[in-house]
Formats: sequence, structure tokens, C-alpha cells
Amino acid sequence: MRVLCAMNGGNGPQSYAQNSSYQRGATEVAKEIIREEIDKKLDIKQLSSTSMDPFCIADFGCSTGPNTFVAMQIIIEALEDKFKKEGLTPEFQVFFNDLASNDFNTLFASLPPERHYCAAGVPGSFHSVMFPKASLHFAYSSYSLHWLSKVPKEVTDNTSPAWNKGKIHHGGAKREVLDAYASQFAKDLDSFLNARAHELVDGGLMALLIPAAPDAIRESHTSTITEVECEVLGSCLMDLAKKGVVDEVKVHMFNLPVYFTFPNELKALLKANENMDVQRMEILNIPGKQVLFPNRTANVLYLRAVLQGVLEKHFGSGIVDELFELYGRKVADSSFFFDPENQDLIVIFVLLRRKMRT
Amino acid sequence: MRVLCAMNGGNGPQSYAQNSSYQRGATEVAKEIIREEIDKKLDIKQLSSTSMDPFCIADFGCSTGPNTFVAMQIIIEALEDKFKKEGLTPEFQVFFNDLASNDFNTLFASLPPERHYCAAGVPGSFHSVMFPKASLHFAYSSYSLHWLSKVPKEVTDNTSPAWNKGKIHHGGAKREVLDAYASQFAKDLDSFLNARAHELVDGGLMALLIPAAPDAIRESHTSTITEVECEVLGSCLMDLAKKGVVDEVKVHMFNLPVYFTFPNELKALLKANENMDVQRMEILNIPGKQVLFPNRTANVLYLRAVLQGVLEKHFGSGIVDELFELYGRKVADSSFFFDPENQDLIVIFVLLRRKMRT
Repeated sequence: MRVLCAMNGGNGPQSYAQNSSYQRGATEVAKEIIREEIDKKLDIKQLSSTSMDPFCIADFGCSTGPNTFVAMQIIIEALEDKFKKEGLTPEFQVFFNDLASNDFNTLFASLPPERHYCAAGVPGSFHSVMFPKASLHFAYSSYSLHWLSKVPKEVTDNTSPAWNKGKIHHGGAKREVLDAYASQFAKDLDSFLNARAHELVDGGLMALLIPAAPDAIRESHTSTITEVECEVLGSCLMDLAKKGVVDEVKVHMFNLPVYFTFPNELKALLKANENMDVQRMEILNIPGKQVLFPNRTANVLYLRAVLQGVLEKHFGSGIVDELFELYGRKVADSSFFFDPENQDLIVIFVLLRRKMRT
Repeated sequence: MRVLCAMNGGNGPQSYAQNSSYQRGATEVAKEIIREEIDKKLDIKQLSSTSMDPFCIADFGCSTGPNTFVAMQIIIEALEDKFKKEGLTPEFQVFFNDLASNDFNTLFASLPPERHYCAAGVPGSFHSVMFPKASLHFAYSSYSLHWLSKVPKEVTDNTSPAWNKGKIHHGGAKREVLDAYASQFAKDLDSFLNARAHELVDGGLMALLIPAAPDAIRESHTSTITEVECEVLGSCLMDLAKKGVVDEVKVHMFNLPVYFTFPNELKALLKANENMDVQRMEILNIPGKQVLFPNRTANVLYLRAVLQGVLEKHFGSGIVDELFELYGRKVADSSFFFDPENQDLIVIFVLLRRKMRT
């Protein structure tokens, strides 16, 4: 099953644009690191030996804004400062990439008028090559790599030991389900890295912000709170199936194409790639995490902005209101979801450099 | 008054995508000329001395497709043949430009899956610089340059000799109105050429298809059939004003930001530009012109696909159905509009080359 779905479009109360302040928080935390890395690691001499006029930046998985504009602003300012030191003032071209089903109309309508760059949108999956060879100088991707290119096929195969009956994610499921997800993530990350290695010039940099689970959680085979949320959402779907609102078989066939890697796993996968050098990898300390979802409404709206597309594609648009109302009631009954101590999802910052082509 | 409006979006019966076969006909006629010119005039050696990896093409005023895809296919095939002769196989990047209000979602959803190029959308007015300096190798614009960046302000100024009271275009209007339109076109064409001169590499080519009026019509101060259509549409608006459906003052303030140049005028304007060399200029012979609008419905749908945006921006969405129904009845009463002899709008093909920067 191939499920490629963009975030909710537009600017309404259920849009991603209005429900993505959590992701923006991580970008703000990464700001100083990005500035520091661009200053230290961007080798202008090496880049200039290839074609570097203009300087091209791409955000992979940009969604509809505004987070992507904040991130691009941070990167451009850091680059301008770096180039200024060398007496250079290059022109910048920023490419906003996301799936063709992403709401680019909303993205384009909200481009910052005072931007210091030429803007372009690039539709298509970042698991494939999206740009000509050696045409990018800086790549960025934030809160996107946890989306898989597809649900691992074993988990919807009722003859497989990894069949994930009655659940929609690996949280609380059999070990084989988690393994199938991990294996799909490894394949997808490799496709992503190889596509970017094609597109980046020698010495080009790539900054990634990847939501992940702590090593301790993966090693103990327990779940992050986000994975528990998915478990609750899955139980709501099963409730609707029992009420006859959705077909139970359809619930068995549905799984979320999302996987949260963990630091040790990610480190090993990045190290295995032959084209990219890991320059920095660290877990971000996000101070705003404690107030991620101050109340039930915020939590429901966030999950809906992110998951509505993928749910409607599988179940049709009829059930989404009822599903999220039921979900809202279930999480409200539990103080677990709003206890800051339980906000255990982490964000990993990675800086990679494209190796010299031989 | 600044009226920047894109063509009707989507794929429905009133969309530009479904009502632009006339414009596609001109592209097909231009195909052989474009192939011939790329083969003869594209100086690969000169382009290679600048950065030419990848080869970048832009369509200015692409709308929502499918015409732009046909045109890009023609250009890419011609380029591939040309490069093959030199033993080269560059990668291509195609930029689709139109106003930010253009329906890029529809454009991206209909990109040809088998395309030989990386695709990107670039939102913004082509009267301004849209790309970094010397970053394009081939520019194209078809059926777009007759759209002005704004209505010339004199024609809505009731103290000006060019005030166009009760009309919405220069057809059948005072000489001063036509002069004001011509002067705005000259300014806009100059902005367009200078922006492209910034963006094109030295030796880069630009192909333009520009709808125009024959010299004889401009010299005799008469109107093309398209201008007569605008006159009829203006009279319908005045009818609605008399019925109280729209405010008469609003009709006086409304003018279409469209101007059809004529060959002698265009030639002089192009020649005056210091950055571009005219390599070829000719009137296309479009065989399909006689069946442009086989019936009333086709004519109404075409005009609506093109003008709905600009009309709704000024009058609101309430009047469009009634307006085009009235227009449909008026044109049906006259055989004039469906007589092939009266289809007098022409299309001018121009090939320009970016001069060497000094």
C-alpha cells in the first residue's frame, strides 16, 4: 500500500499552517546550531570551484508554511553573514519541495514579501531525485523523514508474522511489526540520502531535523507518547468498526506510514552511507516541549492537521469528524497525555556534507 | 488600478485547462520554427563558457496546463536533438512561471509522468525579475504578453482626456484610450525584456508567441473581432448597470488589462531594447483559426475561462453567470462572430537572443 499524503492545506482552523507551532519551536532551537555550522563548515572555496552562481537551497518536505519560511530565513541570514566575510554577495534561489498533493497555492500565497531569495516550488517525493546532478548547495529537511514512502507491506499481509491486525501503528504491537517499520525506514532514508547525494555539489551541506524516540524506549520495547496516541487512534477506529461505521477489514489494512527512529539506529544508518559525511549529530533540547499540547483541543487539531489526508485516502472523508471527536474524548479521560513528564519524543539534529565525487 | 488575475483554475468545464485549445494550436504551428531556430541559433559553445549544468528553461505565463507541457516537450526534444549532435546529454530543469494566484496545484497534479526534465513552479509577475542573474538558458512565453501589468490609469480617471466612460476596453473608444493602452504595453514589454535580460545567460534564447492585431486594423483605427467581443461584453455590463445589478460607476472604473500590439509597433519596441537581439519575427499562419469558436457555447466558455478572475476581482462573484448569459445571447444574435472571414487576430512569433554582457 502506497500512502503518500500531504499535510492539511489552506489556512483554516484544521490546517497544518495553523497547527504546526511545535515543529517551529525545534527550528528556533536549531537556529544557533545552523548558524554555527554554516560559519564553520561551509567551504566557500570548494563550492566556488563548482558552479556556484546562484547559491541554491532546497527544503524537502516544506508543507504549506509558515515553518519553512522561518527556516529558510535562518539559513539565508547565516549564509549572507558567511559570504560577507569573504566579500561575496551571491544571489539565492530557494526550492520548496513537497508531494504534488501538497497545497502549493497556499504556500505561494504566503511567501514573505521581503525575502532575499528567488522562490520556486518543486512537487514530488523526496525519496526520488528531484533536481539535476550537483545543482544544490544546501539541503534542509525538518519533521519530514519520519514519514515513510509506504507502509511496510508485511504489516497488512495476513499471512505474515508481522501482520498488524486491529492496530494502525507499531506502538503496543508485536516485535515483528516494529522490525518491519524499522526496515522500511532504513530503505527510505537510504533513498533520501542517495537522491540528495546526486543533487548536492561536492562539499554541499545538508541539515536535518528528525523526530525520534529515545534509545531507552526502543531498547525496552515500550512506546513514546506519540506512539501511544496512535494506539488510541487505532482503538477509536476499531470502536467505529464495532459500531459498523467503518469496515473492520479496512482497519486491519490501515497502518500509519510513520516511524520514529532512535539515535543509535540513525547514527548507524548515516554512517553506512558512502556519499555523505556526518559532521554533527545531537539531540536538541527543546524548552517549549512541556507546553506542546496545553489542552485536548490543541492535541486533536494537531493530530488531525497531520493525519487527515492519510485517513481520508483510506477510509473516505465521512468518518474523520466522528473519529477525532471520539479520540478527543478518550485522551481527555487520561491525564497521561498532558503530563509534561510523558512528552518523550526527541528531535535529532544532523549535519551532513556531500563527499567529493571521485 | 492593479489587476493581476490568473486564468480560471481547476479542470472543470469553465477552467482554462479545458478552454485553451486555440492557444495550443499556435504552439503546434510554432513547433517547426522552434526546432529550426534551436538547431540554427543555439550556440552551445558560447553557453558552455558560462555555467550550463543543468540547462534551465522557463515558461513565463504558463497557466495551469496542458499547453505549457506541450510547448516544453517541443523545446526539450529540439534541445536534445541539438545536444546529441555535439555528443552532449545535459539534464534539464523547467521552471513554470505564473502569478502567485495561478492554480499551481492543478498544474503540478497534471505534470507529464514521463517528462525528461526536473520541474519547478515559480510564482510571481513576469514584469519583475523572477530568477537569479544569468541562471536561465532558454525562455518562452506564449499568449501572455498581451496581459498588461495594470490598466493604464488615465482610462479610469474622469479628469483625463483618455477617460473611457461606459466602456471596458479600447475597442470602439476614443483615440486617447488606445494611446494609453499602447503606452502601458510599451512599458510592460520593456520591463519584461529587461527582467529576462537579467535572468538569461549571454547567448541565451527566448521564443515568444504574442497575439496581435494586423497593422491594417491599427492604422485604420478599427477593431479586431476580439476587441469587438470586449465591446459587446462592456455593453452587457452597462445593461446590467441600467438594470441596477451592478453600480454604473463601477463599470466606468473597470477596464480590461489586455492590449493587442501590431507587427510594426512590436518590431520597433523590440529593436529599441539594448539587451536583446531580434533573431526572427514572423506572423504565424494558424490553419485552425477558422474553427476557433464553432458555436456560441465555445466562445462564451473561452472568454469566461480567461476573464472570470479579473471580472470577479472588480465586481464580485455574483454577476458572472448573468453577465455571460447575456453576452451569449448577444453574440448568438449576430453571425458576425462566427464568420471565419472576421477571425482577424494574428499571432506573432519572435526569437530573441541575449546579447553579450560587456
